[in-house]
Amino acid sequence: MANPTAAMLVIGDEILSGRTRDANMHYLAGELTKHGISLAEVRIVPDVASKIVETVQGLSREYGSVFTSGGIGPTHDDITADCIAEAFGKTIGVRDDARALLQAHYDKSGQEFNEARQRMARIPEGATLIENPVSVAPGFVLENVYVMAGVPSVFQAMVASIMPTLTGGDPVLSQTLRIERGEGEIAGPLAELAATYSDLSVGSYPYQQNGAYGANVVIRGTDGQRVDEAMARLAELFA
Amino acid sequence: MANPTAAMLVIGDEILSGRTRDANMHYLAGELTKHGISLAEVRIVPDVASKIVETVQGLSREYGSVFTSGGIGPTHDDITADCIAEAFGKTIGVRDDARALLQAHYDKSGQEFNEARQRMARIPEGATLIENPVSVAPGFVLENVYVMAGVPSVFQAMVASIMPTLTGGDPVLSQTLRIERGEGEIAGPLAELAATYSDLSVGSYPYQQNGAYGANVVIRGTDGQRVDEAMARLAELFA
Repeated sequence: MANPTAAMLVIGDEILSGRTRDANMHYLAGELTKHGISLAEVRIVPDVASKIVETVQGLSREYGSVFTSGGIGPTHDDITADCIAEAFGKTIGVRDDARALLQAHYDKSGQEFNEARQRMARIPEGATLIENPVSVAPGFVLENVYVMAGVPSVFQAMVASIMPTLTGGDPVLSQTLRIERGEGEIAGPLAELAATYSDLSVGSYPYQQNGAYGANVVIRGTDGQRVDEAMARLAELFA
Repeated sequence: MANPTAAMLVIGDEILSGRTRDANMHYLAGELTKHGISLAEVRIVPDVASKIVETVQGLSREYGSVFTSGGIGPTHDDITADCIAEAFGKTIGVRDDARALLQAHYDKSGQEFNEARQRMARIPEGATLIENPVSVAPGFVLENVYVMAGVPSVFQAMVASIMPTLTGGDPVLSQTLRIERGEGEIAGPLAELAATYSDLSVGSYPYQQNGAYGANVVIRGTDGQRVDEAMARLAELFA
């Protein structure tokens, strides 16, 4: 059976302007792969409500689950929670349990729990909170959409807290052979190998190092014995 | 007048599996911003022909230009050129000028110009070549889609060669103020500032450093005087 599919939606002008280099996509990709969930598409969109709403609706229909990062803080450009509510036709308002978490946090640190901070307790109706052990303000899950923070340390903590709740598939096993020849030289036999092992994924990733070309050939699949077999054949071909 | 819009399409299983961290998106974002072109959306899709074709068609209709990276090498998983041809209903075949470039390169290096390498001369009808000073195999432009390599050094060289051919808008000017207070404290006044300067983009990007919270507030716009004014007001607010 095919593994469950997922999509990621990165929200934020700062990524698209080149100001910030996104780190969350690469992190999530690795975690999902380990968990046997296939990340099938990623989209990066700006802080534009109509775009976020329409993208969430599309991805939620197409994939088993959707993970978002960004736009859930206290400032005027944090519009993700409202957009998710709109995408599913839900109301949104400050929720008691989320407010209590934040209230306790700000009381303890002696900071004012002002209007802006209360915005972070706005949660769409019917959502489940995602714990944030780093900075308290929670993420949430609505339908099949997991809404998380953009700050990498917070995003990673949230991913850690949801991961055990996700239904994974068979872990994808991966083996890599580094071949010190140009891709053009290995392409023919490699295509035949890929055709023979069509139940596996055979990828070729070229590199250039000290002026020499080579390729990392990666064989991936859920059946360890098949991956081993294909790797042995690959090694024979390019010994 | 609004600046021209663009989208990027990153093609490759290795990005989605978490094996490789994409570097091209961040690079292109910075170059387009300098050139006054607004990167409005990014998508990352696997080496699946139907997905590539449908995504290229959608992005090409929605945005002024589309930039792709990945999938134009000699191996069996390099399917981008064929997908782009299909997306626009064009034929594709080995083209004489592209073949001549590659033939000369392999003759010079004493390597065989075999069938796999000839695949890199397959160019959709009506396309214009994009020069590749790093490893010769060209990219191409078809309609409003710029098709480039995934290897970062080659991608960057290709971007450098197309950039002068693109019609840019007004360069976007950007100023940043680092404010050593939590976002929750500055959010109220910041929202008012953003409303006053609604012709500019006012973004707040939180950070955490040595246990203290702060935010980089970035004001962006094409009118330098307005950006200066808004920055002066921002500095006053949080002096």
